[in-house]
Amino acid sequence: MTPMPRLDLARLLDQRLDPLTKGLPFDAPPLSLGEVGKQGWNVLAGDMPLPLAVIRQDVVRRNSAWMSAFTSANDLVIAPHGKTTMSPQLFDLQVADGAWAMTVATVQQLEVCLRFGVKRVVIANQPIGRGAIDACFRALHGEGFELYCLADGLAGVAMLAEGAKRNPPPASNPLRVLVEIGFLGGRTGARSRDAAMAVANAVVAADGLTLGGFECFEGLLPTPEAADGLVDDVAALTQAALAEGLFEADQPVVLSAGGSAFFDRVGERFNNARFNRPVVKLLRSGCYLTHDSISYAAAYDRIVNETSLTLPDGRLEAALEVWAYVQSRPEDGRTILTMGKRDVSFDAGMPVPLRWFRPAEMSRPEAMPAGHKVAALNDQHCHMETPVESPLQPGDMVAFGIGHPCTTFDKWQMLVLVDENYRITEALKTFF
Amino acid sequence: MTPMPRLDLARLLDQRLDPLTKGLPFDAPPLSLGEVGKQGWNVLAGDMPLPLAVIRQDVVRRNSAWMSAFTSANDLVIAPHGKTTMSPQLFDLQVADGAWAMTVATVQQLEVCLRFGVKRVVIANQPIGRGAIDACFRALHGEGFELYCLADGLAGVAMLAEGAKRNPPPASNPLRVLVEIGFLGGRTGARSRDAAMAVANAVVAADGLTLGGFECFEGLLPTPEAADGLVDDVAALTQAALAEGLFEADQPVVLSAGGSAFFDRVGERFNNARFNRPVVKLLRSGCYLTHDSISYAAAYDRIVNETSLTLPDGRLEAALEVWAYVQSRPEDGRTILTMGKRDVSFDAGMPVPLRWFRPAEMSRPEAMPAGHKVAALNDQHCHMETPVESPLQPGDMVAFGIGHPCTTFDKWQMLVLVDENYRITEALKTFF
Repeated sequence: MTPMPRLDLARLLDQRLDPLTKGLPFDAPPLSLGEVGKQGWNVLAGDMPLPLAVIRQDVVRRNSAWMSAFTSANDLVIAPHGKTTMSPQLFDLQVADGAWAMTVATVQQLEVCLRFGVKRVVIANQPIGRGAIDACFRALHGEGFELYCLADGLAGVAMLAEGAKRNPPPASNPLRVLVEIGFLGGRTGARSRDAAMAVANAVVAADGLTLGGFECFEGLLPTPEAADGLVDDVAALTQAALAEGLFEADQPVVLSAGGSAFFDRVGERFNNARFNRPVVKLLRSGCYLTHDSISYAAAYDRIVNETSLTLPDGRLEAALEVWAYVQSRPEDGRTILTMGKRDVSFDAGMPVPLRWFRPAEMSRPEAMPAGHKVAALNDQHCHMETPVESPLQPGDMVAFGIGHPCTTFDKWQMLVLVDENYRITEALKTFF
Repeated sequence: MTPMPRLDLARLLDQRLDPLTKGLPFDAPPLSLGEVGKQGWNVLAGDMPLPLAVIRQDVVRRNSAWMSAFTSANDLVIAPHGKTTMSPQLFDLQVADGAWAMTVATVQQLEVCLRFGVKRVVIANQPIGRGAIDACFRALHGEGFELYCLADGLAGVAMLAEGAKRNPPPASNPLRVLVEIGFLGGRTGARSRDAAMAVANAVVAADGLTLGGFECFEGLLPTPEAADGLVDDVAALTQAALAEGLFEADQPVVLSAGGSAFFDRVGERFNNARFNRPVVKLLRSGCYLTHDSISYAAAYDRIVNETSLTLPDGRLEAALEVWAYVQSRPEDGRTILTMGKRDVSFDAGMPVPLRWFRPAEMSRPEAMPAGHKVAALNDQHCHMETPVESPLQPGDMVAFGIGHPCTTFDKWQMLVLVDENYRITEALKTFF
């Protein structure tokens, strides 16, 4: 399989930014996306309004390289979940680092990939609705474009098969269907091996579809041990389908799994299984790219401590921060900041104050002293518990680490990359 | 005070929509915002991808008219909180119904108001940061434009005063500052009447600022009785400042409060107070416009049952729905739908399934049978508990009511207005 070509970002970088875009200075001249990094703006100089979502460029590049080295060293490939960032500029970084495909969750996200030239996409979902299914089949006529999607039941396969009748794909480029294996009480996914094999057989029987392989999403399971069983199902079903001759001889056989919490177990279990032809062992992690300061940080510590896989040098670090101003110190023990539910994720732990900075007085941000803790977020405000001796005063800046990058990215149509001195080097457009 | 003129929306309606905008059909021709409503698209015909955020146009117009009648009947005015929708087209509806001003939370939101011609804005926050403060003072040079903002402490007033020195406003158009009164354990706001009066005196002493009045945000308080005390503080401080001669003779005296839960109490308490000159009794509710299906619905029931104010005919109803497809019925008791944390609010109760519809088989949506309940949301999926006898199957559509409109609106760059048959009549652009 050939590596994917780099993305075509020229049109994106030339795109004029709406001056009303959250995060742009209020007196900015009319700018294209590509010009933002050339203004010499610096967060610490007060050039940007806060809140602002900031990505440390050195860290995000190291994280991307780390995952590339990790998958290469362990006979895995990755289709990074693009839904996390929905930023074609970050997709391009992932493609440059060898991504086998991009993963998306919806057909709108597929369309973003198509515009910017991603050549292989995994929709980690069953497309539903005539418009969405038709768009998938239209995409198959694109030069050199390959599309994988999921199915977990006969009703879903039937909808895809009807779509293929309405929009027959090229004979050489069918819709590749990964059969999803789930678990009782879980999300989508066939609940038994027999049910999954029935779905696989229905795919094989349908014109315009081909069996791409099997997959699961183990990220909702509570423990690595629970993930093992589900991942083993994926391997066992692949073996069974190979034994039954359900795969086309000229199509790759794909086994896939992998959120960002148990990707080590996915690699270990896939590597333990034996197959009678080459297979693609595909991770779909997305959050590794910016990592986080809460749950994925903890999950990664477990991986580093436990895995039997080869770990490359370096380690994942948190690259994504949201900066806010101290707005008020209305009483002892409480600080109110200019950041809220619309600016930062709050579904996987409250943001974590990391550093603070006083413009015009300090030369570098300093580590946040102990005892500062976010107590609550409103739409546009952050309530932070504050020790009596806290140095914070209105106008100070605070950098917060975040949990769950997906729900921070989706609050920004533009994020900025910064260098080690918080100078802005590039603006990233998102498509949510 | 003259009513605000209608907004200038022509440029907005002519704006070309990015075809990648979430909610647009995947095969839509290149379209301007204003053309979306002319395509004859219908949600029930399967013309739109789901999830889709839908506003019932008759309901939203009735809600806007209801609030207009309510405030008029009770000697109140309203500056609807625009942060809820951030949709200039809905701002225009509110202005047409007599809004005294628009309220916003941030300077980015102020800039949205400025672009579309809102002539009076209340920033219900202390602007922080040189760029934000400078933008406020620049705005004061706009023809016929008036700006109110908050301050709750001497540090904040000092920052505003420095801004006025950097950017002196026209003598006839100072920055109008409302002193914020808070409560212990609350958000921003001076914690005592003495502290608030010190802030008011600092405002009066600063060039380029003028005392606009006093305000609070009572929406975070747990009970209407607790709200009463805070609202009474606003009235008492206004009386004290009048007695001390802190207001300019030619400037309005503003008392303001009012989230969307206790706006009746605000009106009652303000109306109980006596002042020695005319005052503006200003509500800032925002969520009334689309209302909701959870907490504001309950808060409104209390208002209707308890208030001594005059209630106009009709009542607020939920106008905002998010529609999703049934994606999978993987096991008895569970339905997975194509809607997640990125599409619908989840911070004030899980979305409520209201109706369902089977394309090509049913003629109208039917009420959701009892026993369907959202158990969880992932980024892009909804898990719904489902009774054994549920009629739902993959491909069916489900309409969800939402809690907390602010955090549903901010997940959409485009929402659609629909008529009573779910035909799309207009697309609404948002600016988050």
